[in-house]
Amino acid sequence: MKTAHFILVFCLLALASLFAYASDPSPLQDFCVAINDPKDAVFVNGKFCKDPKLANAEDFFYSGLNIPRNTSNPVGSTVTPVNVAQIPGLNTLGISIVRIDYAPYGGLNPPHTHPRATEGLIHFQFNIGNTKAVAFAGLSSQNPGVITIANAVFGSNPPINPDVLTKAFQLDKNIVTYLQSKFWWDNN
Amino acid sequence: MKTAHFILVFCLLALASLFAYASDPSPLQDFCVAINDPKDAVFVNGKFCKDPKLANAEDFFYSGLNIPRNTSNPVGSTVTPVNVAQIPGLNTLGISIVRIDYAPYGGLNPPHTHPRATEGLIHFQFNIGNTKAVAFAGLSSQNPGVITIANAVFGSNPPINPDVLTKAFQLDKNIVTYLQSKFWWDNN
Amino acid sequence: MKTAHFILVFCLLALASLFAYASDPSPLQDFCVAINDPKDAVFVNGKFCKDPKLANAEDFFYSGLNIPRNTSNPVGSTVTPVNVAQIPGLNTLGISIVRIDYAPYGGLNPPHTHPRATEGLIHFQFNIGNTKAVAFAGLSSQNPGVITIANAVFGSNPPINPDVLTKAFQLDKNIVTYLQSKFWWDNN
Amino acid sequence: MKTAHFILVFCLLALASLFAYASDPSPLQDFCVAINDPKDAVFVNGKFCKDPKLANAEDFFYSGLNIPRNTSNPVGSTVTPVNVAQIPGLNTLGISIVRIDYAPYGGLNPPHTHPRATEGLIHFQFNIGNTKAVAFAGLSSQNPGVITIANAVFGSNPPINPDVLTKAFQLDKNIVTYLQSKFWWDNN
Amino acid sequence: MKTAHFILVFCLLALASLFAYASDPSPLQDFCVAINDPKDAVFVNGKFCKDPKLANAEDFFYSGLNIPRNTSNPVGSTVTPVNVAQIPGLNTLGISIVRIDYAPYGGLNPPHTHPRATEGLIHFQFNIGNTKAVAFAGLSSQNPGVITIANAVFGSNPPINPDVLTKAFQLDKNIVTYLQSKFWWDNN
Amino acid sequence: MKTAHFILVFCLLALASLFAYASDPSPLQDFCVAINDPKDAVFVNGKFCKDPKLANAEDFFYSGLNIPRNTSNPVGSTVTPVNVAQIPGLNTLGISIVRIDYAPYGGLNPPHTHPRATEGLIHFQFNIGNTKAVAFAGLSSQNPGVITIANAVFGSNPPINPDVLTKAFQLDKNIVTYLQSKFWWDNN
Repeated sequence: MKTAHFILVFCLLALASLFAYASDPSPLQDFCVAINDPKDAVFVNGKFCKDPKLANAEDFFYSGLNIPRNTSNPVGSTVTPVNVAQIPGLNTLGISIVRIDYAPYGGLNPPHTHPRATEGLIHFQFNIGNTKAVAFAGLSSQNPGVITIANAVFGSNPPINPDVLTKAFQLDKNIVTYLQSKFWWDNN
Repeated sequence: MKTAHFILVFCLLALASLFAYASDPSPLQDFCVAINDPKDAVFVNGKFCKDPKLANAEDFFYSGLNIPRNTSNPVGSTVTPVNVAQIPGLNTLGISIVRIDYAPYGGLNPPHTHPRATEGLIHFQFNIGNTKAVAFAGLSSQNPGVITIANAVFGSNPPINPDVLTKAFQLDKNIVTYLQSKFWWDNN
Repeated sequence: MKTAHFILVFCLLALASLFAYASDPSPLQDFCVAINDPKDAVFVNGKFCKDPKLANAEDFFYSGLNIPRNTSNPVGSTVTPVNVAQIPGLNTLGISIVRIDYAPYGGLNPPHTHPRATEGLIHFQFNIGNTKAVAFAGLSSQNPGVITIANAVFGSNPPINPDVLTKAFQLDKNIVTYLQSKFWWDNN
Repeated sequence: MKTAHFILVFCLLALASLFAYASDPSPLQDFCVAINDPKDAVFVNGKFCKDPKLANAEDFFYSGLNIPRNTSNPVGSTVTPVNVAQIPGLNTLGISIVRIDYAPYGGLNPPHTHPRATEGLIHFQFNIGNTKAVAFAGLSSQNPGVITIANAVFGSNPPINPDVLTKAFQLDKNIVTYLQSKFWWDNN
Repeated sequence: MKTAHFILVFCLLALASLFAYASDPSPLQDFCVAINDPKDAVFVNGKFCKDPKLANAEDFFYSGLNIPRNTSNPVGSTVTPVNVAQIPGLNTLGISIVRIDYAPYGGLNPPHTHPRATEGLIHFQFNIGNTKAVAFAGLSSQNPGVITIANAVFGSNPPINPDVLTKAFQLDKNIVTYLQSKFWWDNN
Repeated sequence: MKTAHFILVFCLLALASLFAYASDPSPLQDFCVAINDPKDAVFVNGKFCKDPKLANAEDFFYSGLNIPRNTSNPVGSTVTPVNVAQIPGLNTLGISIVRIDYAPYGGLNPPHTHPRATEGLIHFQFNIGNTKAVAFAGLSSQNPGVITIANAVFGSNPPINPDVLTKAFQLDKNIVTYLQSKFWWDNN
């Protein structure tokens, strides 16, 4: 039964990972391990690199992706991203991965888009099974980003003018202001 | 006064056009005027090309972008896209343009993203002035696409499982099913 | 009559904007507002970024694009570019825009190419109407550049060997040296 | 104990997936489900697309990735690719995934490179544990390809001139011709 | 003396080859040998491919690049391009090469740009030596194209409005019409 | 006879240069001459740029590519790379060139791949003629890199676990450890 369930989730996951496309600039040397440059708050597109001669195995290592995460939260899911922020060696390599844990009976990775790595069609996964589920997805950017639709619309800070949301979502203005006052859980 | 108003709208528009990035594959010849190939319902990524020797001025021409459009609709705005569907000569050239007309007193181009040409951060324009307004925006794809958030979430066909939307948007399920029953105007 | 005229100019403009293609490297984070780093005259491909946490509305704002410019100059046109040099928030976003004002009775945006954003086919616009005209064009680079052909050939500094121009343009050498001694107006 | 083992393999896997970079051309429409066009043996870069209006869930579905594969073969590993050949909906989307099963006590995914999706630095994974292991990896091309070094060098058809291999690998010519006569298992 | 001369020409050539940048879409399979598809005058961006199973050595072969070409022509140079038109196997591979022969005493490869492979800065080579010279240059497109400035401006067909050229080049209109009546040699 | 020989080598060379594809990020300004920034061992993807106003002819110049190199070494060939390390002005331009000299009677440029500029299919050239030979090849990266297969497999430092090579290459373990103890000539 667990097998059948896994298939189901993978099918939904496929929808999530399908709409990716290649966009990151390509590497210009073998290693460009990301570092943060604290000097004068100056940044570049992407990250500065560590001296390539000092690159080591630690720069390419991440442990714990095999460990189930707690999904006791309002949406019933937890995303564990593994991108350039977690593995500095991914800098300039244009790929990252996520683990997604779903609670049984309705664990939801809510409707979202990825501004840099995936196409931006809105997608979600919903665990309709009665067991926990897990998914792994590859994304074609070192820093794909995620925009959870409901959070971006109703939970943005500063808030969007409620007249805009009232008209766009055809909601009563009271509902809009109520939604804007709520807490929006971030499962990433 | 009209001038001051124009500046205001352009400021909002800037937010719309900022988040574009270059993504279309580059051209491999001088002209690849798009045609639709009806043979056997076979397609390619992008469009088939007309014989380059037959390319002519008509393939690169579009008239009427200077004419204001009617904005008497539920959102109070109308988008006039000029992309590869309107100008077949734009095929392989990675750029398009839109004209947006806004009604006075709250004309809204509702929150949306562009899956191919722009970054996907959610953006909108709202005419807070008391006159009509107009904007022109360049987009970095021959076919940028547009996903109007509210329409994609509540007006998709087939509809999204209302349990997903109830949980994601923290709405009463009755409101979700009511929203799903409504008509969602497409201003594009 | 103004409408008919606008159409004419837009038709010519279409030729200018057609040959653009997507080429800039894509963004790797949400904001990379350009700054100039004065330290030791060190530069990067594109621009250094401001601390993303300090990005604000000013970084994405440009006013005055609605104001007609003076076209009383030798070519009868004035280009107002709005790219990463004017809007630092355009950095890494691969797009820019220009306003072009044309004098009546022969205002000319002379033959030119764009080395980074547009295809490089030589193009121009010529206002054959008896009223002023204006055009807006999108270009698919944050810094498209412009090479005005006549200026680059006859007005370059240091000058090109006149023997090269004599042979290439089939002109009398005296005409070449005369042209090289003239002032070449830059309408950008 | 299984957990500790998984971490070990993931560490090795990380080396495999690090060197990927974004390269596939980007999509120009929402769907371009791959089809093979049998007409006159004509092909395009990538694949022809199915009529987008006929795209359906089957085009984006693959089942069985959760099922362990048999690794009783000369190298002790089996790669299960899931790319555009298995999921036609991946066409134009620039990403694919593989499952790799490793036998205990020395299961080897032998030294290889990926000509299109990964950097081409030679990499391998070796299961030094005493249990079976499994890995999932994302690759940034719809058709990354794989070149198993030993197979390409000694098992190519037609064979490489043995004088070349004798000199390049500093081997006795008899050993080269012996290696060229052997069977080279393809674990993909 | 020949050596010194070669260095001189290479220096000029360097200016020609410097301004190239990578732009062609990347390959999606190992071989996509170009063919022309005569069916219904339908084309794609780039070329249709031959059945990969039928690719052979002839598709990747070009002979004669070592043979000096005749440079007895008005500009004193001859360009021998080797791109996808000459080697169909270059299709989707994003690179091509040219041989340039220069006559002694002023052989000129006149000012030109490349719309697809090179940056578009205007460049030329001029043989100021008293011997023949030869150069080889790599270009980063399978079909870089070339726009010889003088030919495009004064020899285009249909001709550019002479009022445009009179104003842009600050020439007497009689000289413009005379130049437009001349024959413009194409050294490619 | 020399001519015939040249043709032969060019044919082999063609195989080497075919599999290149465009991948480097595109330039964002006219000049970005590479410099090394010694400050705090901080690096970027590619190179920092010199102040564009200080760019000069020296930054784009390389002499000596016309001079035959000594090929008296174990493989009988010498590669002279001319990339961003030799010509700093190539930075951001996505192209480089190499000269390859081959000894007569078996000069070998051994099997290798290029991780950034060329496709990664393994290729080599072998001079079967009885005279010296020379080849020039363009590569579509400012820093294509080269992985000589035998050196990477048997000469890597630190060495690869000999059990991996024994299994992957179907060799006796004694031969593997003997090969790992040898000196591997680098012809680049």
